[in-house]
Amino acid sequence: MPTLYNRIQGRNIERLAALSDGIFAVAMTLLVLDLHVPSAAQVHSERELLAALCALGPQWLTYGMSFLTLGIFWAGQQTQLNHIGEGTRDLTWIHLGFLFTITVMPLSTRLLAEFITYRAALGIYWLNIFLPGAMLFWSWAYATRANLVNADTPDEVRGSICRRIVIAQALYAAGAALCLINTWVSIAVIVLVQLNYAVAPRLGGRKPK
Amino acid sequence: MPTLYNRIQGRNIERLAALSDGIFAVAMTLLVLDLHVPSAAQVHSERELLAALCALGPQWLTYGMSFLTLGIFWAGQQTQLNHIGEGTRDLTWIHLGFLFTITVMPLSTRLLAEFITYRAALGIYWLNIFLPGAMLFWSWAYATRANLVNADTPDEVRGSICRRIVIAQALYAAGAALCLINTWVSIAVIVLVQLNYAVAPRLGGRKPK
Amino acid sequence: MPTLYNRIQGRNIERLAALSDGIFAVAMTLLVLDLHVPSAAQVHSERELLAALCALGPQWLTYGMSFLTLGIFWAGQQTQLNHIGEGTRDLTWIHLGFLFTITVMPLSTRLLAEFITYRAALGIYWLNIFLPGAMLFWSWAYATRANLVNADTPDEVRGSICRRIVIAQALYAAGAALCLINTWVSIAVIVLVQLNYAVAPRLGGRKPK
Amino acid sequence: MPTLYNRIQGRNIERLAALSDGIFAVAMTLLVLDLHVPSAAQVHSERELLAALCALGPQWLTYGMSFLTLGIFWAGQQTQLNHIGEGTRDLTWIHLGFLFTITVMPLSTRLLAEFITYRAALGIYWLNIFLPGAMLFWSWAYATRANLVNADTPDEVRGSICRRIVIAQALYAAGAALCLINTWVSIAVIVLVQLNYAVAPRLGGRKPK
Repeated sequence: MPTLYNRIQGRNIERLAALSDGIFAVAMTLLVLDLHVPSAAQVHSERELLAALCALGPQWLTYGMSFLTLGIFWAGQQTQLNHIGEGTRDLTWIHLGFLFTITVMPLSTRLLAEFITYRAALGIYWLNIFLPGAMLFWSWAYATRANLVNADTPDEVRGSICRRIVIAQALYAAGAALCLINTWVSIAVIVLVQLNYAVAPRLGGRKPK
Repeated sequence: MPTLYNRIQGRNIERLAALSDGIFAVAMTLLVLDLHVPSAAQVHSERELLAALCALGPQWLTYGMSFLTLGIFWAGQQTQLNHIGEGTRDLTWIHLGFLFTITVMPLSTRLLAEFITYRAALGIYWLNIFLPGAMLFWSWAYATRANLVNADTPDEVRGSICRRIVIAQALYAAGAALCLINTWVSIAVIVLVQLNYAVAPRLGGRKPK
Repeated sequence: MPTLYNRIQGRNIERLAALSDGIFAVAMTLLVLDLHVPSAAQVHSERELLAALCALGPQWLTYGMSFLTLGIFWAGQQTQLNHIGEGTRDLTWIHLGFLFTITVMPLSTRLLAEFITYRAALGIYWLNIFLPGAMLFWSWAYATRANLVNADTPDEVRGSICRRIVIAQALYAAGAALCLINTWVSIAVIVLVQLNYAVAPRLGGRKPK
Repeated sequence: MPTLYNRIQGRNIERLAALSDGIFAVAMTLLVLDLHVPSAAQVHSERELLAALCALGPQWLTYGMSFLTLGIFWAGQQTQLNHIGEGTRDLTWIHLGFLFTITVMPLSTRLLAEFITYRAALGIYWLNIFLPGAMLFWSWAYATRANLVNADTPDEVRGSICRRIVIAQALYAAGAALCLINTWVSIAVIVLVQLNYAVAPRLGGRKPK
C-alpha cells in the first residue's frame, strides 16, 4: 500500500527546482546576517571606521568563499535537474538530503569565521563542500540508473557531469588537506579552485557557442 | 456580493504552490539560525573546539528531526497539489492554515532544543507534527468532495493519500505517547518513523518504475 | 529616451508574482523570529514551562493576527494579478509599493506585541492594514484604466474587487477606531473581521462551484 | 573535457530568474530585521512612544532608500532577463556576481544607518549601488555580444538598456560625490534620483501604451 503512494510522490521536478531555488536564495542572503557592522560607540572618526571595517576582513573572506560555494552548487544542481524530466520520490529525498547540506552552510561559515585558524573548523567546512558534492553525485548516478535522464541527453553529458564532480572534489580535498600546514593556505587553495570553476573558463573560452 | 469575489479568489494553484515552496525554503533554512556556534572566548585548542561542538549534540538532533519533518510535509503537500488542477478560495485558506503550522516549526524546534527533557515541550512539538497532517488530510478531503482533483487521478490514489496520512500520524502519536516513559525514547521513535518514510522504501524498492 | 526603456520595463507579470510570493513567504516566516521561547534558566518544572508559555499569549495573538493579515493580502493580490496578462512599469512600481508595506508587517507586529495596550502602536498596526489595501485598490484602478485587465474578465468582477477592498477597509477602520475605548476591543474586532473574510464564507457556502 | 560541461551549464534562464526573485525577496524583507522597536522598559506614555518612534527616523530613511534601490535593480534585471531566451554558464556567473552585490545590501544599509554622518559609510553604500549597476551593464553587454538576446528585440531596446544604466549611475555618482559637502545632502540627492526613476515617469506619462 505505501508502494502506490511512493509511486505518485515526487513526480513534479519543477516544484523540486522551486524549493531548491528558494533554499539557495535564503542561504545566500542569510550569510550576511552573521556579518557584523562596527559599533558606533567605538568609532570616532572616518579613519577609525575604515580601520574597523578592515579588521572584519576574515569575516568577509569566509563570506565570499561561501557565496562562491553556494553559487557553484546552485549551478551544478540546476544543470542536473535540467536534464531530468520527471522525478521519483527517491530522487526527491536524495535531493532533499542535498538541500539539507546547503542549509547548514551558513552555520559552518559562521564556525569558520569564528575559528579561522582551527583545523577542526576548516575540516567541518570542507565536509560541507564534500557532502553536497557527494549527494549531487548520488542524485545523478541514481537518475542515470533509474532512466530519469531525458532521452535527448547525449552520453558524453552523462559522463561529464560525474567526472566534473569527482575532479572538483579531489581538488577541494587536496586543498583542505593543506590545513595540516596552515588553514590560511588551505582556504586560499579552496578559493582558487572555486574561482577556477566560476571565472577562469570565461577568460579562456571566448566563443561561448 | 462577496460570493462573486469568493468565486474568483484562489483559482491559481501554481501561485499557491510557489508560496508553499517559498515558506518551506525559508523555514528549512531558518532552523539553522537557532543553532549556536561555540564562542571563541571559551575555546583554546582544537580539542576544546571538538568537545564544544559535541556538546551541541541535542541541538543538532532536533534540527535534523525538524528538517526531516519539513521534508516529509513538503513532499506530501506537493503530491496533493500535483493532483489538483484549479483551486478555490476555501482550498487556499485550508492550505494557508497548513502553511501557518509550518511557519511555527522553527519555534517548536527551538522550544524542544531548549527543553529536550520536558514532556510539555515534546507534546508541543508533536502537536506541530499532528496539525500539519490534519490540515493536509482536511485539504485532500475537501478537494475530493469539491471535485477539484484532476479527473485522470485513479481512485486508488485518492484513498492511498488519506490512508498514508492516517497511518503516519498514528505512528507519530504512538511515538509521542512514549514521552510518558522518557522524552529521548519518544524522539528516537519519531525519528525512526520519519526515516522509514524518507529512506527505507528506497532500500527495499529497487525498481522505481 | 527613457520613454522607450519605460515601455519595455515590467512586462513580465509572472516575475512580479514570483517576487510577491517570495516576499510573502519570507514575511510570514520571519514573524516567528520575534516570538521568544522561555529561557531554560528560569524554568524548573513542567508546570513552570506551561505557565511561561501561557504568559507569551499576547505575542501569539499578534503573531496569529499578522499571519491572517498577510494571508488575506496574499490572496487579494493573487486574485488581482490573475486577471492581468501583461504589466507595465507603472503597475510594477505600484505593486512594489504594495510589497514595501508587506515587508514592514513583521516590524509593526513586533511593535504591537511590545506595546499592546498603547493606542499609538495599534494605530500604526492599523496603518499597516490600511496602506496595503490602498495600494491594492490603486493597483486595480490603474490596471482597469490602463486596459491591462484580461479581456475575458466580466465587468462584475472588476467592480467586485474594488467594493471588496472598500468594505473590508471600512470594517478594519471601524475596528481600529475602537482603540479609543480599549486596544484589546480593537484587536478583537479586527481579528473577527479577518476571520470573517478567511473562514466564515466557507461555513456558509457549501457549494464552491 | 570541462568545456562540454561548461556548455551544458546555466542554460535555464527561468531558474536564474527564480533564484533572483528569491534573493531579492529575502533581501527586501531582511532589511526590516535591522530596524529596532523602542524598548517597553523606556517608554511610559503614548507621547513617549511616538517620540521614540520619531527618533528612529534615520533608520527608516536608509531602510526606505534601500528598498527603492532593490526595487530599481529588481526591475532592471527582470527587464534584461526578459529579453534573453537561453543562458550560458558565463551569463550565469555574471548574474551570480550581480546577486552577490544584492545580498550585501542589507549589510551596507545597516552600516549607513549606524554611521549616517560618515563619508566612508556613504561611500560604501554608493559602491553597493555602483557595483550592481556595473554587473548589469556587463551582463547585458555580454548577452549582446554572445547573441543571447532574443532575435525579436529591436535594436533601440539594446542601446536603451545600456544608456539607461550609464545615465542613472552617473547621477548616483554625482549624488554620492556631494558627500564631500555633507552626507545628508548626498542621501537626499540619491533618493531624489531613485524617486525619479521609480515615480516621476508615471506622473508625466499619462499614456502607458
